[in-house]
Order: sequence, then structure tokens, then C-alpha cells
Amino acid sequence: MVIECIPNVSEGRRPEVIAACAEAITSTPGVRLLDHSSDASHNRSVFTFAGDATGVERAVMALFERAVAAIDLRTHTGEHPRLGAVDVVPFVPIDGVTMAECVELAKKVGAAVAQRFAVPVYLYEEASTNPIRKNLEDIRRGEFEGLATKMATAGWAPDFGPSAPHPTAGASVIGARMALIAYNINLATDRLDVAKKIAAAIRHSSGGYRYVKAAGFTLTDRGIVQVSMNLTNYEKTPIFRVFETVKRECERYGVQILESEIVGLVPSAALNAAAEFYLQIAGFNPNQILENKLRTLG
Amino acid sequence: MVIECIPNVSEGRRPEVIAACAEAITSTPGVRLLDHSSDASHNRSVFTFAGDATGVERAVMALFERAVAAIDLRTHTGEHPRLGAVDVVPFVPIDGVTMAECVELAKKVGAAVAQRFAVPVYLYEEASTNPIRKNLEDIRRGEFEGLATKMATAGWAPDFGPSAPHPTAGASVIGARMALIAYNINLATDRLDVAKKIAAAIRHSSGGYRYVKAAGFTLTDRGIVQVSMNLTNYEKTPIFRVFETVKRECERYGVQILESEIVGLVPSAALNAAAEFYLQIAGFNPNQILENKLRTLG
Repeated sequence: MVIECIPNVSEGRRPEVIAACAEAITSTPGVRLLDHSSDASHNRSVFTFAGDATGVERAVMALFERAVAAIDLRTHTGEHPRLGAVDVVPFVPIDGVTMAECVELAKKVGAAVAQRFAVPVYLYEEASTNPIRKNLEDIRRGEFEGLATKMATAGWAPDFGPSAPHPTAGASVIGARMALIAYNINLATDRLDVAKKIAAAIRHSSGGYRYVKAAGFTLTDRGIVQVSMNLTNYEKTPIFRVFETVKRECERYGVQILESEIVGLVPSAALNAAAEFYLQIAGFNPNQILENKLRTLG
Repeated sequence: MVIECIPNVSEGRRPEVIAACAEAITSTPGVRLLDHSSDASHNRSVFTFAGDATGVERAVMALFERAVAAIDLRTHTGEHPRLGAVDVVPFVPIDGVTMAECVELAKKVGAAVAQRFAVPVYLYEEASTNPIRKNLEDIRRGEFEGLATKMATAGWAPDFGPSAPHPTAGASVIGARMALIAYNINLATDRLDVAKKIAAAIRHSSGGYRYVKAAGFTLTDRGIVQVSMNLTNYEKTPIFRVFETVKRECERYGVQILESEIVGLVPSAALNAAAEFYLQIAGFNPNQILENKLRTLG
């Protein structure tokens, strides 16, 4: 069983605090730290790790212990919006685990965090218990500074823990979601208007695919433009469908796709779905992939 | 490190011998039996297993022990050509291991088999030490019945072991090769001539791709035809290139691809290459696949 967890912590400047958070994860048996990055202007760090349910839960608890002790939101500044010391904790099903099990894990960890650290917890995305509290942006609106007022408003009692913010650690947002794929398509043109029009055509907010966020940019050093995307559910809005739609929209403007790029990690299932689509493979079973078969038997 | 090994044993009728061969593999630590099938008319069984170099070597030795004791080629009959009790043993690099390492393993196991069982061993494919003894079919020509004469001919001394056949177990062919992918493309037509012409266009023997074997068949029950293929080196002749060529040849005859199918197992790298091609992914690194990253760290 493999669950990915990507906690966002409100500290991107003090190396000793960042190291302590990383150490909370690396010292937990049964999990592997895959990546971490810190941004000083955001004053925020993102950790990516994976493991089974027990390991992931223990690592998150260890992370809260370090972060709550070291971070004081009353004096925290940074460009990125934030609500708490451990701001967001998503659980992502990767292999041998369902979304429902990740939702259960989010609830279990949420309850444990509230009890042990007296930090109020909101459940979000697939773990959300209320449609108006599904989106992270909606929960985080008002940030730490507006949290006491917001929590006193009808409908904003937290899912777990006290109904007022933790004095220094604010509140945390914990939930379950699909793996997110950062995917860019570079166009063989410098026409920014084309990239922007195509981004608008495919993104959910302006009428496109439900699980696509997109924007058009210029890559100044290369003299080309890019449609930059986040694919937030690769099962329901697969990469190949987005790619083919961008390709077709390009034709309409007389431009071509130069290349695409996957930024960071991608679940193998997302790539296999593309192979299956283009090769028109009928009756394909993931157990036919040698490595999967070996893992199943292992 | 994962090496696949697919020994072919000259016994497809006596269940107790087949079970003993399977048990030789399943009882070896560090390997997993992925598949096995027996054919009575061929009087032959094929076992597919995987593991690290040490495990795979031990399993092969255990298999020889059972097969050499139980099989007598002097009384063996069957449709499939064969030279020995354990007829062929290919080692296939899958993950974290090079072809060169599989060649070394073939030589090590070949020497050990010759010494312990007094069975002469020919090295084939990537492990071959002589161009005229690279192809399995060339080595096996004349079969067990012609083996004594063949072995006395110039150039046919074995790579390891005695220069005459083992009285009951004949000789064995051991080597290293790329993973083989059994791949079929079904056409939305009943025109067998089209399937045969396309098979001829893409297969190596009649001028097509180097690592493609192909034939055209009718699928009587479905009223369609099939281009049935073995892809013997998916790195040098990738699936997507074969698929696209078949698609283009179909156009020339006014027919369409209905679907394709992968029979049995496929290495994930072969599917990832297709995703990379069709999505035009630039600078892709297999370590970006979450499961690979986890395995690397594990």
C-alpha cells in the first residue's frame, strides 16, 4: 500500500526548523521522503513523502510536534496565504489503496492532531463534510489573521478540535485528493495570445475540462509560449485528452506543439492510460505490467 | 534488481514432473514464479519467474536437478523442436540490471550446469560467443536425435561441458535477451490478404523492422483479421513505431485498426515509451514516475 502525503508547513526561512520538519519524516519507519522544497519569500516549505497508512500517520504526527513547537503565526510573514503552522496535509492514493481509505486516514489523523495538539482541523477535498468547505482556497480565505472571526461564524466550526484558533499554530486543513500532475505544453510560436486562448479553452474555470487549471505564459529565454497546467484528477480528465485538445486548438491558430513536459512526479497509471489510448489496447489489465505483477506477488 | 527467466522444459504431459519443476522454482528464496503453462502436444512446459541474480541462478540449478533426473530425451516425443531436458534458459534484464550483467549470469549458470550435471551448454543470443550460434533455431536444428553428430562437427563444440550429449538430458541452450512482447493488432475487416500484406511489410524477414516477427491470421469467431507479432527488442523497435506503421499501411487498403492487445506481460518501460512519444514529452526521466522513485529509495 502506498499513500503519498504532501504537507505544507509555514516556515521557509529558518534552516534549523526546516531541517527538524524533514527529520520528523525521515526518522519515521515505513515512510520515504521523496522531495522537499522551501521558499523564503513564501516563507513556506513543501514536503513530499510516501508510505503505508500507519507510517504516514506517524510521520504527520511527528511533523506537527516539531512545527507547532517552532512556528508562531503571530509573527509569521510571507507571500503565500496560510492558516496554520502545518497549513495543509493532503493524502493521495497511489497504489493498493482507495480514495475512501485515504478519506478515513484524513479523518483519523485530523482527530488525533486536534486531540494531541489542540489545533482545530478542517477536512477538505474528498474528505470534506460540507460542500462550502471542499476547496482549500475557501477554507483559507481570511488567513490566520481572520481566523478567530471566521471560526465564530455559523458553519465554520472546525471538523475536529477547539472552536477557536490555536494561539500560535492557527488551524490545519487535512484531507484526501487525487494525485496532481504538473503538466506543460510548449508551443512552437512566440504568440502569447495563442497560449492564453488555449489555456482558457481547456481550463475548468472558463468552460473547459473539469480537472484542469491552466494559464498561458511566455518563456522569454526560449522565445516560445507555454500552456502551463495542473491536472487535478488524471483518471477523470486524462493527460492524453488534454494533449489532443490542445493539439486541435493549435491547428486552428496555425501553430504546432513543440513538446510537453511533466514537472516533478507522475503516477505510472497516468502514463499507462496514454499508452492504452494511443495504441488502442483492448482489455488491458495493469497486472500485465511486469513490475506490477512482481509487486502483487511480493 | 529484477531479472526475468523463462526456462522451457521438455515435459508437458506428466503432471508430477511438471509440478516438481514448478516446485523447484517456488521453493527458491528470492524468486517469484509469475506464470507457467504446459502443452501436451508439444510435450513442453514454459515457466516464467523473476528475482535477483543469486535467486535466479539457484532456481535454475534446482530446476535442472529435477528435470535432468526425470526426463529422458530418448523416449521423449512432441511437436516442438527440442535439444535437451531443460531445453532453453533465457535471462532477461527488467529493472536495475544491464544486459551485460545478464550475459555474465548466463555464462556463470552455463558453466555451473555443465559442471554439476555433465550437460553440454550452448550460449545464445546476447551471450553467444559465435555469430553462427546466436539464433536459437540454428543451435536447435537437428534436435536431440541429431545432436551427437552435430556436436562432432567443426564449430559445434559446446561453450561449456562435455563435447558429446548427455545420454538422457541432451544439451541446453542458455543465454540473455531482451524482454519479448507478444503484441497483436486486430483490423476492422475480414480481409486476410490485408493482414498478411501488413505482416509482411513490418516483419524483419521480409524487409520490415529488425525486431519484429509477424504473421496475418483470421479470427474466425469474430469475423476479423489479426496481425500477430512478437516484438523482440522494444527499445530498438518500439511498440508505437510498429503501431503507427500498421495504421499507415491500413489506410492504403482502406481499412482501420479496431484495437490492439498485449498478450501476457509487458515491461513498464515499453508502455512509458509510447506515452512519451505520443505526448511529445521532452526531457522525461523514469525517476519522475512515482513508483520508480519509491523503488529507487526503497
